[in-house]
Formats: sequence, C-alpha cells, structure tokens
Amino acid sequence: MGSFITLTTDFGLKDSYVAAMKGVIYSINPEATVVDLCHNIQPQNIRQAAFVLNTAFSYFPAYTVHIVVVDPGVGTDRRSIILKTPAAYFVAPDNGLLSYVLEPFQLPSLPDYPRARLVPPLRAFALTRPEYWRKPVSPTFHGRDIFAPIAARLSLGTVASALGDEIDTLCILDPSSPASRGNIITGHIAHIDIFGNLISDIPERLLPPAGQSITIEFAGAVIRGLARTYAGAQGPVALPGSSGYLEIALDRDNAAAFFKAGIGAEIRVISGVNNG
Amino acid sequence: MGSFITLTTDFGLKDSYVAAMKGVIYSINPEATVVDLCHNIQPQNIRQAAFVLNTAFSYFPAYTVHIVVVDPGVGTDRRSIILKTPAAYFVAPDNGLLSYVLEPFQLPSLPDYPRARLVPPLRAFALTRPEYWRKPVSPTFHGRDIFAPIAARLSLGTVASALGDEIDTLCILDPSSPASRGNIITGHIAHIDIFGNLISDIPERLLPPAGQSITIEFAGAVIRGLARTYAGAQGPVALPGSSGYLEIALDRDNAAAFFKAGIGAEIRVISGVNNG
Amino acid sequence: MGSFITLTTDFGLKDSYVAAMKGVIYSINPEATVVDLCHNIQPQNIRQAAFVLNTAFSYFPAYTVHIVVVDPGVGTDRRSIILKTPAAYFVAPDNGLLSYVLEPFQLPSLPDYPRARLVPPLRAFALTRPEYWRKPVSPTFHGRDIFAPIAARLSLGTVASALGDEIDTLCILDPSSPASRGNIITGHIAHIDIFGNLISDIPERLLPPAGQSITIEFAGAVIRGLARTYAGAQGPVALPGSSGYLEIALDRDNAAAFFKAGIGAEIRVISGVNNG
Repeated sequence: MGSFITLTTDFGLKDSYVAAMKGVIYSINPEATVVDLCHNIQPQNIRQAAFVLNTAFSYFPAYTVHIVVVDPGVGTDRRSIILKTPAAYFVAPDNGLLSYVLEPFQLPSLPDYPRARLVPPLRAFALTRPEYWRKPVSPTFHGRDIFAPIAARLSLGTVASALGDEIDTLCILDPSSPASRGNIITGHIAHIDIFGNLISDIPERLLPPAGQSITIEFAGAVIRGLARTYAGAQGPVALPGSSGYLEIALDRDNAAAFFKAGIGAEIRVISGVNNG
Repeated sequence: MGSFITLTTDFGLKDSYVAAMKGVIYSINPEATVVDLCHNIQPQNIRQAAFVLNTAFSYFPAYTVHIVVVDPGVGTDRRSIILKTPAAYFVAPDNGLLSYVLEPFQLPSLPDYPRARLVPPLRAFALTRPEYWRKPVSPTFHGRDIFAPIAARLSLGTVASALGDEIDTLCILDPSSPASRGNIITGHIAHIDIFGNLISDIPERLLPPAGQSITIEFAGAVIRGLARTYAGAQGPVALPGSSGYLEIALDRDNAAAFFKAGIGAEIRVISGVNNG
Repeated sequence: MGSFITLTTDFGLKDSYVAAMKGVIYSINPEATVVDLCHNIQPQNIRQAAFVLNTAFSYFPAYTVHIVVVDPGVGTDRRSIILKTPAAYFVAPDNGLLSYVLEPFQLPSLPDYPRARLVPPLRAFALTRPEYWRKPVSPTFHGRDIFAPIAARLSLGTVASALGDEIDTLCILDPSSPASRGNIITGHIAHIDIFGNLISDIPERLLPPAGQSITIEFAGAVIRGLARTYAGAQGPVALPGSSGYLEIALDRDNAAAFFKAGIGAEIRVISGVNNG
C-alpha cells in the first residue's frame, strides 16, 4: 500500500550518500521497498535527471514515492516540495526536476517564468514542517535530512498536507525543445545510454504517422526512414526507442562514440509527403 | 516461496532500464525480492553473461527466478524462453545465455548445432502467451515488457506451462573451450574481475589432483604450481578461484593490467608427473 | 527486529561477488533486508573503507548488521570477528576496518600496537564456529562463505556468543591523523566523493568555535573561513560536510580535479584569535 520508494540522484554509487538516505528511510519505515531508479545523472544536470525519471517512474506501482535529488541550490532558499499526481508522489527540490512528469498536464506558464500554475488533479506542497525532518539538517545534504524522511512518512500513509503548505505553482524547465515549425521538428539529445544510443527529447507521438516519409538530420548525417529494431541495421538508424522517444543507434555498436555527440546535441526530423 | 528474482544484464546502472524492469516486476508481485546479480556484462557479450550468471545463481534460495537479458537479437525471431531446473527458473532469450547452467546436465548436441536436446529433469518453454506480457511490447526492450512480467508471474506461482509452449531444444554456445588433449588443457579468460584477476573457463575439477606437478602458460609467462590464496605471493600466481575456475592473480595488484590481457585470451594448463 | 544487513566492500558492481553474498544471506534469512552501503572502496584500502562505513552506518535502524569486507589478508591467519556495540553489529576481518566505529569509545592502545583493548559496552567475538559457515570455505572469498552466513545468523537473532569466542582486543589503524599541536590541526584526505569534494579526516568537533578566525592550507592554497553551503562560492571553499568532517569543495565543479589531489593528501587547519 504505497510502500515503494524510488531514488533518482546524481550521487553515483561510489560514496555512501545513497546508503545514508536508505538508512534514514528504513529507520522510519522498516517495511518500505526502496529501489534505485538512477544515480548516475551528470553532476547537477537537472534536465537529464528530469528526463531519466520520466522514462521509468510510470512502471512502478501506483502511489510509489519518487525521491529526486539533483540539487545545485541545496542550502539556499530554493523550495523543497511534494508533488501529488493521480498515480504517484514526488519529493524533490523545486528546480524543474519534475518538468517531464508535469508535461502531460499542460500547465499554463506564468508571467514569472520559469514558474507554471498547477491544474487539477495535481497538488503540491512546500516542505515547511521541520518536525518531520532529520536533525540537525545538513546545509549540503537535504536528500538525507529532508527528502528521505518526508518520503518515508508519505510511504507510511501520512497525508501530504500534514508535511507542508499547499502551493499553486512549480518551477519548470525551458519547454522550447522540442520545437515544431512547419514539417520540421528540432530537438536535442537528452540522454545517452550505456550502449551509446542517443536518446532525444522528441516524443514518438510527434513523429509523422507510418506511411509518411521521414528524414532525420543529426551531426552531419542524414538518416532516411525509421527502423523498428537495432538488429541487422547497416550504419546509423533512427527509431522510436523503448522509452517513447526518438533515438539514434548503431547495431551492436556505440552511436555516441561514432558521432562524437553529447547530451544537448541538436537533432532534426523532417517529414515529407507520402512515398506510397 | 519462490519470491526471489535476480537480474543479469548488459544494461549497466547509468540508465533507468534496470529500474523499469523492477517497476514492472513489483507492479505484478509487490512481495518479490529483486536482487541485481550483475549488470556490467560487456555490451552484447553472451558468453561472459553466461559465465557470470553461473558463478552466482546457485547461492540463491531454491526456485529463485533468474532473468538474464543480453539480447543482441531483440525484436528478431529469436525465441524467448523459460528454463526450469530442479533448483531454479531462468527467463531469457534463447541465444546461449544458459549454456553454463546447462553444462552439468550434459545435453546431447544436435546435428543442427548450436542446438542441444534437453534431458530430464530439465524442462523449457517458449514464451508464446502475449496475454502475460506488458503492452505495447517495445521491439527493443523485451527485458521490461516480456521477461520481467513473465518472471513476476513465475514468482507468484504461475506454472511455466501456462506461460508458453514446451520445447525440447535450447541454443548453446560453442562448447570447445576448455579443451583437453593429452596432458594439456587449453582454455580462455572468461571474465576479469574488479581486482584484475583473470578468471578462466577451466573448472577446478579438470585440474590435476594435488601432488601432481602443474604448469600454467599465459600471455608468455610460465607459472609453476597452484597457490591457495592471493596473500603473500611474489609475482603472478594461478589458483582455483572462489567461483570454481582457475584464475591468474597478483597479490594486491592487477593481473589484467600487468599482462595487458583481455577476455578471450588463451590459457594453457600442463600437468606432469609427480614431483614428490 | 534486527533484520537489516548492509554491505561495504571493495568488490565493485561489475562482478557477481556482491550478488553471491546476498544469495547466501537470503538462503539463510529470506526476510532480511540487504542494503549496499558502498562497494567502491579502492581495492584493499582499509582506511578508506573504515571511513566510508562510519559516514553512513549510524543512519540505519538499531541492531542492523554491517558486513565490511576489504580483506587483503583473506585466507591467512588474520582473525574474523563480530563487534557488538549498543547500536549495531559489525562482521569483518580484524584488520582495522572498524577503527572509526570504535573511536568514540576511546579504547586504550596496547603495547602491542596496532591492537587496542575493548571497553564496555563493547563486546567482540572471534569467528571460531565453522558449523555456521558455508562449506567448502573458499580461501579467497570469506565474504561469501563466512561473513555472509554469520551476518544472516545474527539477523535471525542468534546470539553472537554462539558464533565465536569472546575476545578483548581488536586491531585498529594508526590513530595519528588528525593530529593537533598548538593552534594547528594536521589531517589528511580520507575520501573523494563523486562531485570531487575532498573529505578530510578532521571531524567538525575539532574545528574552532564560530567567531574564531580559521585558515585552511591545502595543496598550496590558503582558504580563509568556513562556508556553510556549496552554492554561490567563488573558488575553493572549506566547510563542515554532511558526514561530519571538514571538506574542500568547489561550487558546481570538481575540487579533486582542480587541486589534482588524492586520498592521503595533507590538510592543515590553523585557528587564530577572535576577529570580532
């Protein structure tokens, strides 16, 4: 009953930071099941963390609590928050980490960008009740001292409104990528996986329907048409990846090394007339 | 009661692929205990994965379900299978990943090598019941959409025969290494561990009995006799390692770096007359 | 009820060694919750392991069993032990790994340094009951064959005295760092985290009280005063880190790379008169 907690951080696994968070969680809720979602986000790369979180959180049981800590502003006055969606809880600093989670809800941007206004059924809470935190709170490790205990309380069934004050806006990342203009979609590489597959921020639903011609331009190369699998391809292929985004890959080889491309590189999709 | 599930993949831990599989498993069986066996197999190295799986699976409780996903053929017509042994279940693509698990059962090779015929008490099933899979099935991520849900069903007690059609052959890897000829055994390095220990595919049971002289030839070096531990050795030593295979090591140093040797390098064991 | 077990090793995660230990634990206590504390200790670096263990173990529930395996002497006559403190159990080779855990108890050094005499409420036991070990015991993997089964027994409630013979001394590391002389504290870098923060062995409690001037000398640089957070700093800062030790950091940058400094590098703290 809501006793799953996942962790997404840029803490890596060479230190004991992740273990300290788990120790705090288990000390409050010994029955929790704590799962590493990803700890190898580039240091302080909020956008990559937001993207990677979005590729996996929805596979977890309903009401899982997802802690996300990529937090260059730790110890400053940036807010710490709980976001409650119909399917899950998120506990994170309010710095844009939940942008991809929020996207399907089509939040209205506010004049004071980068803030957006929450719409039902979303609810959010600023963490304002220190009595639920671990003491003393380290100014450099809110993951252990604030986010972990708050997530543990949520997993025990404490209502979010008891843990903070309701708020009606959240920070979001610049939503200008991907951008569509005419028959061209311009996106960027959001993540590179262990195989060297280059995963863009262009969701599969933006791609032209089957039967239309499609051309992908990336790093000086031109790829015509979409593949379905990696196996058997000659040279680079573009395909809708398992996470729901367009990706560039090489069969049994490393596309990132081949293209010498990194996170942030531009990718363009040009859709044309029916070739049929 | 069969609620343990292990994961062996070449997915690494820098992405969310492993987490997505765990989310799918927990969504079907919230009581499962999911354990990482190894995720750092070289990309697409089926033989290494088969070897590493074999060094650890037998330590888990009886009826543990072991998912193994190193799957260069994902999305092609290669079969997906369940293997049931007296001690465990395995869920994997049918591409040789279970070769070391099968070895003690001495399967007869078939004329259509690389296939082998199953013998009792082994049973295997081709995964042919999409109603037990996650939908839609990504053509590039059967680990999440087929293997994870099937393993979760097994862990809940669903019988394997309900999840697929029984088959009587499985794909195995070329069994020609190690090879014995006269007093010489020729094998290859199957895995290099974090200490740089070079672990061969020559099982301890093939080594000459204590009291016989033994010489190991590797990468131009000649090592006489077997050591028992790493500690205190001068120069490279050969010893029966903790996984049951002959390995080459350096006390408190990295033998792989010393020998500049990689997976697949040849190693020879020459047994001689009693030196007594 | 004492069913948590953590693992701290230099085994990394590229092999199946950690998984084999977990399999052994779960085979004895299927209800245990096993948590990775850290597996990326430098090979055979006992001091680093002792330090990292100390930065995280205290966040776990009371009576957690902490297995620590950095064991260059495996298979020699070094002892294997259980340490029982009022808050936790530790299972490890007797080679100094528990030095930081022992520090608050101020053990008297013995003439036969590096041994120290235990004081109440501490109790320790040499593992002398092979009937509780996995057989056969590999001479190179006591983690799997001795420490894991013993920890599993402790987690089930077996009393430590049933698993070994009580002993009254333990091996400790050279306690000469950090050293105070006059107004100067000389310490060393004990660990470098994934962000490149340089974490020293100088505990926060040795630092001068707020209001006194403080100067840190490190790698040719002079840092005046202590920061509270990473955010917003220009150039290198020194601050009491989240683990309770003085650390050197760069805001959103890698201090270890900047200083080209490694574990063991010297750091000096000079406290002066009140600047007020």
